[in-house]
Amino acid sequence: MFEEIKKARAVILVSGGMDSAVTLAIARAQGFACHALSVDYGQRHISELAGAQRVAAQFGAVHKTVKVDLRSIGGSALTAEIAVPEHAAAGIPVTYVPARNTIMLAIALGWAEVLGANDIFCGVNAIDYSGYPDCRPEFVAGFEQLANLATKAGVEGAQLHIHAPLIHLSKADIVREGLRLDVDFATTVSCYQADAEGRACGRCDACRLRAQGFTDAGVADPTRYR
Amino acid sequence: MFEEIKKARAVILVSGGMDSAVTLAIARAQGFACHALSVDYGQRHISELAGAQRVAAQFGAVHKTVKVDLRSIGGSALTAEIAVPEHAAAGIPVTYVPARNTIMLAIALGWAEVLGANDIFCGVNAIDYSGYPDCRPEFVAGFEQLANLATKAGVEGAQLHIHAPLIHLSKADIVREGLRLDVDFATTVSCYQADAEGRACGRCDACRLRAQGFTDAGVADPTRYR
Repeated sequence: MFEEIKKARAVILVSGGMDSAVTLAIARAQGFACHALSVDYGQRHISELAGAQRVAAQFGAVHKTVKVDLRSIGGSALTAEIAVPEHAAAGIPVTYVPARNTIMLAIALGWAEVLGANDIFCGVNAIDYSGYPDCRPEFVAGFEQLANLATKAGVEGAQLHIHAPLIHLSKADIVREGLRLDVDFATTVSCYQADAEGRACGRCDACRLRAQGFTDAGVADPTRYR
Repeated sequence: MFEEIKKARAVILVSGGMDSAVTLAIARAQGFACHALSVDYGQRHISELAGAQRVAAQFGAVHKTVKVDLRSIGGSALTAEIAVPEHAAAGIPVTYVPARNTIMLAIALGWAEVLGANDIFCGVNAIDYSGYPDCRPEFVAGFEQLANLATKAGVEGAQLHIHAPLIHLSKADIVREGLRLDVDFATTVSCYQADAEGRACGRCDACRLRAQGFTDAGVADPTRYR
């Protein structure tokens, strides 16, 4: 009998969108025992969480959803009564959720500590993105540094890593990488104002970036539009 | 008529315990328009949140409680079915909540961003404390660095500051500073297993450190014990 090799655990932030689905596929391909974390922060496109569950199941990941009520803070078109814009504007857009990635990575860090995981993956991307400050490489490096100061593991000498494998990829590259790793993009939900069935508007920033990715990669767009 | 001078806003993490009450008093004394933030993370000593509300009211601060469900992550005597220890042990204790201060500061950062506040206060203390990694000066400095990378304000050139005015004070110094600033310690709740009325056990780590502080400062302990 072969003994089962114990895989190292990793926590992967999985929103239900295409980027985090590809990130989960990459973590699995790297051999991690994957623990997918979704954060229910009061986003209006709540159907993305159903997408997250489907993606986690597809890749055999343990899945957990943690609630944090960012609606009580407001300040974003994704959590407050501010309309989602349907064309690009200069600067940081109103869909930016204050400190969202910091909060989600902090929760991932907490779960990683409970699991004894030293690796956290997130799908942030600094190329075809919406211009959010917390999607930049220097933010990811800063969080990794903090993680090693903040935790029992860090204090006791373990080295925590924040992986952002998509950070320098174009949307077309992300599509290609996902297809190589058998990601079923039809089950993912990127739209900021997806309906209850997860169907996309086709007009918001997230929809435009996603559609352009399929066009640039030269593959058919499997997104379900309403 | 004098024009009202617009005070700079600050977000202060207020748990309901003595340290954060003194921190709020310090922020007010420094002239900030105070916004007190409490985090309901599923702590078993939920009565501390009522203490937070009383403290915020005493100092005329806007008060908000944000929920984040850390029970779904577990891993601590404060959120899971693990007994609170009643005597000190070596190492990081089981009352440590994985990544708690990172998560709470991240939420504070989100609210600060919405408010346009560049100052966040927290009552962490590295002297008479329970040995948590996220109470150390290097953690606070690390979070400040991250805050400036993570946010719109940081990107646009504002400088965010994380203030930890108690970090190098002994518990007795904290008591003295609080009395100087009229903190009503009887309304604060430090006990890890306070009952529904906020009455303390007198035996856990938090109770022992608090009682020692009053003794060392040479003042009567106003804590309501059960």
